[in-house]
Amino acid sequence: MAWSATQYLKFEEERTRPARDLLAQVPLDKAERVFDLGCGPGNSTELLIERFGPAAVTGLDSDADMLEKARARLPDTPFVKADLSTWKPEAPADLLYANAVLQWLPDHLTLMESLIGHLAPGGVLAVQMPDNLDEPTHLMMEETGAAGPWGSVFAGGRLRRSRLPSPADYLERLSAKAARVDVWHTVYYHPMENAEAIVEWVKGTGLRPYLDAAGPQHQAAFLADYTSRIARAYPPMADGRVLLRFPRLFVVAVKG
Amino acid sequence: MAWSATQYLKFEEERTRPARDLLAQVPLDKAERVFDLGCGPGNSTELLIERFGPAAVTGLDSDADMLEKARARLPDTPFVKADLSTWKPEAPADLLYANAVLQWLPDHLTLMESLIGHLAPGGVLAVQMPDNLDEPTHLMMEETGAAGPWGSVFAGGRLRRSRLPSPADYLERLSAKAARVDVWHTVYYHPMENAEAIVEWVKGTGLRPYLDAAGPQHQAAFLADYTSRIARAYPPMADGRVLLRFPRLFVVAVKG
Repeated sequence: MAWSATQYLKFEEERTRPARDLLAQVPLDKAERVFDLGCGPGNSTELLIERFGPAAVTGLDSDADMLEKARARLPDTPFVKADLSTWKPEAPADLLYANAVLQWLPDHLTLMESLIGHLAPGGVLAVQMPDNLDEPTHLMMEETGAAGPWGSVFAGGRLRRSRLPSPADYLERLSAKAARVDVWHTVYYHPMENAEAIVEWVKGTGLRPYLDAAGPQHQAAFLADYTSRIARAYPPMADGRVLLRFPRLFVVAVKG
Repeated sequence: MAWSATQYLKFEEERTRPARDLLAQVPLDKAERVFDLGCGPGNSTELLIERFGPAAVTGLDSDADMLEKARARLPDTPFVKADLSTWKPEAPADLLYANAVLQWLPDHLTLMESLIGHLAPGGVLAVQMPDNLDEPTHLMMEETGAAGPWGSVFAGGRLRRSRLPSPADYLERLSAKAARVDVWHTVYYHPMENAEAIVEWVKGTGLRPYLDAAGPQHQAAFLADYTSRIARAYPPMADGRVLLRFPRLFVVAVKG
């Protein structure tokens, strides 16, 4: 599945806030070997460079479109195509930073345990993931998939990401590998112009596999059906805008 | 009701994190007139001084015990006894910062509208409040109150704080007075040694009015009953610790 970097960047300020919030909880004064896992178009990489300097940071992503945008944005930074499920740093890292990416990988909690193994002493694994599968945005993707003439394409529900483990699961498993583990959720409330703006937002990420699966024959009708469901699920506030509730899980593990 | 500053400070690191998180979202490079509303024992005031300098900050609280602790901690900072429901700054303020206090005041949303009226142009109102009335910690206070021989003392439920308005309510009401309003929840997960440690935590704040109401005759038995309910509601993790889930609401409004 190809991501759309342009679509993704439409909501750059809102999408960068979680990246900033994650970085704010990384307890490192300096770091020499920093990896931005799933760097996307480079907005999070830019934050890491601001904090740790340009020589410290490498960006990794599996997607060519994203890497191209990132290189154009930060030409002096190395960006490397990598499969995060098997990647490991050549030497122990000071910071492995994974903003909004690990939710796409199978059994990411085991992967996180493994990544802590590749940290230098005092190194940090910092992870943020959307935890929004129970939000109307995502429930309506499933409903729309089941409801239309495209139903057979979606039977079996393979497109739905797995639910995240519980906060206690992260704490229990990672505390065995790390000296300190912090877990928290932040629920952001983004005022959006209207329901269509919410649809535009999820088109950049969660909705994309559904649209791909619908295929050229059904895509437009699928999108119209989904948009009308979103309009019902997000009623307008007094000023006409709608409020997009967006829960995200954060985990910061510090190696002993 | 008198607060216990010593009890409150037992969990200073955990309690200060929300204060830091709130301050991190205040978009001011400098500020000359900063007020820490409900400063408590001065831990949040210290953060404000770190950021804006010692000459900028005044602490306000209604509680003499808290003010005394705050003055001992920060002898060069003015701390003033004030009733926040009627207080107003003598001149427009750059920052009105209210960490974990407005939930105790009646109709705090109207108060927040009024406080925005006392900001200088570009000034900021920054508010954090526990939003934990539906957590077992607080549900069990009500349950314990209704269950024992002390039941008549608690009939009527006057001790329960009002539920917070919805995020949309804050956005709708405050957007009429401010150029920008950000609202978010953060749910902290605090690993605690055991159920007793959770009880110690809430003894500093939410449980206090219940213990006061139980009075000397019932206090010990009330506490034992409450503790046993907490032990059932927070089962131990693999390492024997328990996880205290603690949701908090944040609002940052920037005046035009």
